[in-house]
Amino acid sequence: MIYTAQIKVMPLKDLLDPQGKAVLGGLQNLGVAAVSDVRIGKNIDLQIEAASPEQAHGIASEAAKKLLANPVMEMYEIIIN
Amino acid sequence: MIYTAQIKVMPLKDLLDPQGKAVLGGLQNLGVAAVSDVRIGKNIDLQIEAASPEQAHGIASEAAKKLLANPVMEMYEIIIN
Repeated sequence: MIYTAQIKVMPLKDLLDPQGKAVLGGLQNLGVAAVSDVRIGKNIDLQIEAASPEQAHGIASEAAKKLLANPVMEMYEIIIN
Repeated sequence: MIYTAQIKVMPLKDLLDPQGKAVLGGLQNLGVAAVSDVRIGKNIDLQIEAASPEQAHGIASEAAKKLLANPVMEMYEIIIN
């Protein structure tokens, strides 16, 4: 069966996110003043052929560890649909 | 009150996603063969000062339209927490 895994890769909370800071400045210049913080990461949707949701989760986790997320700077969450 | 808005910006389904195709090739080279398709977009977390979840959703939607998503190539989804 084909499962869709959504992997959300975000910069670690303690690290500075310069891209987010730039977007925050841009939003304030555009008049969107109610936004107080912005953090930007990646969203990766994988189509995975697997026998069970647990197996799909394992494959998504392997992909995240091997290629998609840098554990020094990023954390990731996996949601299987 | 402070709300967290999660904005998921993904390339439109009908468009080619060259970054996703490159990651798919990378995963296959690494031996993760069960993945059949990859699409990559952005995930943006906003901290929004608003009186209600509806108002926070409106502000996030304004930010997405004005700056965060390019409607020619991308679609976006907003989740308010």
